[in-house]
Amino acid sequence: MFKANEYFGGKVASLGCETVEGRTTIGVIAAGEYEFGTSTVEVMTVIAGVMQVKQAGETEWKTYKKFESFVVAKDSKFKVKCDQDTPYLCLYK
Amino acid sequence: MFKANEYFGGKVASLGCETVEGRTTIGVIAAGEYEFGTSTVEVMTVIAGVMQVKQAGETEWKTYKKFESFVVAKDSKFKVKCDQDTPYLCLYK
Repeated sequence: MFKANEYFGGKVASLGCETVEGRTTIGVIAAGEYEFGTSTVEVMTVIAGVMQVKQAGETEWKTYKKFESFVVAKDSKFKVKCDQDTPYLCLYK
Repeated sequence: MFKANEYFGGKVASLGCETVEGRTTIGVIAAGEYEFGTSTVEVMTVIAGVMQVKQAGETEWKTYKKFESFVVAKDSKFKVKCDQDTPYLCLYK
């Protein structure tokens, strides 16, 4: 019923759903560093713990904590670093 | 890597992980009404949308919104009603 996705050999996993906010995935990122690409605007929200993020064109990592969000442009890339399993919500605009 | 669970014929799905807060599942509940049982204290947090909840011994449904939490006792039961896909975080104490 919910589409399960795995990336990076299963170190990132998510479930696709349709929430009141729109098309969404809820997922979790294991400790490590990853680069993701976008095909729509994405609003990423940290659900527990801390995520370090470096967006395309930025030179410094920014830190996002529980319930904080960041927006990624369409057709862009962003890097994520986590020290521990970090759940997130991703809303596709 | 993350343990995927499905309940109620796939209408409830989750991914188990170990966050900074402890043993956790992140998941999503499809529209419908469900009853869950607990074997530990559980802290449930709504991640998007609205969840109606009736705990064992209660006579009225309570409404929890985005980022609101409720605590369920060990070895108890609780009912959940959702109108739409509703992502949640469940922390096991």
